[in-house]
Amino acid sequence: MAEAFLQSVYYENGVLHILDQTKIPNVTEFLEITKIEDAWDAIKQLKVRGAPAIGIAAAYGLLLGIKDVPESSFDDFYQEFKKQSDYLATSRPTAVNLFWALKRMDERARKEKNQSVAAIIAALENEAHLIRNEDEEVCRTIGEHALTLLQDGMGILTHCNAGGIATARYGTALAPLYLAKEKGWDIKVFADETRPLLQGARLTAWELMQAGIDVTLITDNMAAMVMQKGWVQAVIVGCDRVAANGDVANKIGTYGVALMAKAHQIPFYVAAPISTIDLETKTGANIPIEERDASEITEGFGKRTAPEGVKVFNPAFDVTPHKLVTAIITEKGILTGNYQEELPKLFQ
Amino acid sequence: MAEAFLQSVYYENGVLHILDQTKIPNVTEFLEITKIEDAWDAIKQLKVRGAPAIGIAAAYGLLLGIKDVPESSFDDFYQEFKKQSDYLATSRPTAVNLFWALKRMDERARKEKNQSVAAIIAALENEAHLIRNEDEEVCRTIGEHALTLLQDGMGILTHCNAGGIATARYGTALAPLYLAKEKGWDIKVFADETRPLLQGARLTAWELMQAGIDVTLITDNMAAMVMQKGWVQAVIVGCDRVAANGDVANKIGTYGVALMAKAHQIPFYVAAPISTIDLETKTGANIPIEERDASEITEGFGKRTAPEGVKVFNPAFDVTPHKLVTAIITEKGILTGNYQEELPKLFQ
Repeated sequence: MAEAFLQSVYYENGVLHILDQTKIPNVTEFLEITKIEDAWDAIKQLKVRGAPAIGIAAAYGLLLGIKDVPESSFDDFYQEFKKQSDYLATSRPTAVNLFWALKRMDERARKEKNQSVAAIIAALENEAHLIRNEDEEVCRTIGEHALTLLQDGMGILTHCNAGGIATARYGTALAPLYLAKEKGWDIKVFADETRPLLQGARLTAWELMQAGIDVTLITDNMAAMVMQKGWVQAVIVGCDRVAANGDVANKIGTYGVALMAKAHQIPFYVAAPISTIDLETKTGANIPIEERDASEITEGFGKRTAPEGVKVFNPAFDVTPHKLVTAIITEKGILTGNYQEELPKLFQ
Repeated sequence: MAEAFLQSVYYENGVLHILDQTKIPNVTEFLEITKIEDAWDAIKQLKVRGAPAIGIAAAYGLLLGIKDVPESSFDDFYQEFKKQSDYLATSRPTAVNLFWALKRMDERARKEKNQSVAAIIAALENEAHLIRNEDEEVCRTIGEHALTLLQDGMGILTHCNAGGIATARYGTALAPLYLAKEKGWDIKVFADETRPLLQGARLTAWELMQAGIDVTLITDNMAAMVMQKGWVQAVIVGCDRVAANGDVANKIGTYGVALMAKAHQIPFYVAAPISTIDLETKTGANIPIEERDASEITEGFGKRTAPEGVKVFNPAFDVTPHKLVTAIITEKGILTGNYQEELPKLFQ
């Protein structure tokens, strides 16, 4: 399929195709999965990554586990369904979207309880497609909104990977870039490599190159100079969580980028699906920040590059205060003013 | 010797000791050099790095090449001296301090032309010691001035390596940290790893640990968060060149650090030996910025971490505008005001 590179997870004719993201950027290889055990393995081994992509893989993976169940009573079918679902849930117990997708499949199965098993299986395939398609729609809509903030000819800087391969398609922060490309715009993207795990170098640069988008890779500490040179007219990043006041938690380094953008009077945009907005969290100060293993910094890629025993601080995320956020772009529209007041309206 | 870890180049009893910086941080090994050929090799292979350290190694290396010349006429001696000097000059033809040190040795040799060869050799050993000791004095004096801007208990962030192992001793930006340690101050240093070449991770963290100074390694993109947390009360960095208006060229990423410091109202100090101040260069815009090979970013860890053929921007330095520089600290004192007016006075 023509857009395969932009779709890291898709299902066709009984086969779940998963881009093996552990091999990116060196090898582009799609797994062709027909058994739930292989879907379990792909999730467990992080071959599929990105919250939405994991949810989609889980829905299709579960489908593979139950699509050949013979005709029987609903209770018998549902017993098998639960067994397969519980099994898949063990692949990555911390992935919220994994459980969210399995729950949606479960609700759909029970909703169809009066149907034949064949009809239930057909409905579940439909539900998995819905989960996938809804995500693509969210991403595309975010992209369309974001595109209204951009212009042909712009230089755009992004951090980490809020890209198509983490979602059904398009990604969040990268969505407007794909839409700009579809429109024939001439944009120039700067991708921060994003230490320590280099998602920008490994994933963002790769997926934009696949789409033929002009991308230049820089180290994180070059962003300020690139802005100083006048090469950047907008920054757009994804997010892990948006607090009720508009504070944004995202990959470590995002806050620094926001500060640099402000210093150069460059707008700083956050692409945020409604699912990442958490009104229960009052401010960024309430967002727990995961600290990760020192070895990610001291031995990033199999080779020691720092002294044995050196003290390391390795937070996975940082918090960008809402005052630095020019706009939050959701699938329901763009917020640019008082986030404290605007965010709750998205849920009304 | 007790302070060997802080002295990457020293000469004792006819032996030139050079810390093999290519093996840092994994192995601490001093080369014990008695022949000019081995000094040539150490300079060529970047086993000694840092402009002042290279100059010192060259002076002692040349001494090794001529110290056993038998008594003869000055002309005969000088012919041999030039031959050895010209040979050593081929080790690293782009290193300005290499030529500067060889020129000083040459001037001293010619100044002593009426002495015996033995006396000339003794004078040249003295000259090499002078070159070394003057550099230590410059560094120590910069450290003493810088220390007046710091206080016990502070958190201090630095970028790249303007450290003791690049100089005779103490370094420039790191000099006040060693002096603070000597005074028994309790300081906490944050070292940016400094992509792409990781001088902060490999060298700064290592040499501060050797001295028992509390150092925490972070990736460059964590500096903003560390400042946000209130852990940093001062930033101090070295420099490659200071323009007549006070603009500072230094390792890539320095400008971003300066912006982050300003956003958090943290003073940003530049340690600058007089030798780095270039009044001929009017502003930072006139400083040529070296662009280096893409592979430093795409295969920096000995393993490819970015797509084949990706476009890369890899400047080695950036320019921090003088308005972001709280003070320039030289061996002749601290400048904090109008650099355009103050800098020329250092040369009067």
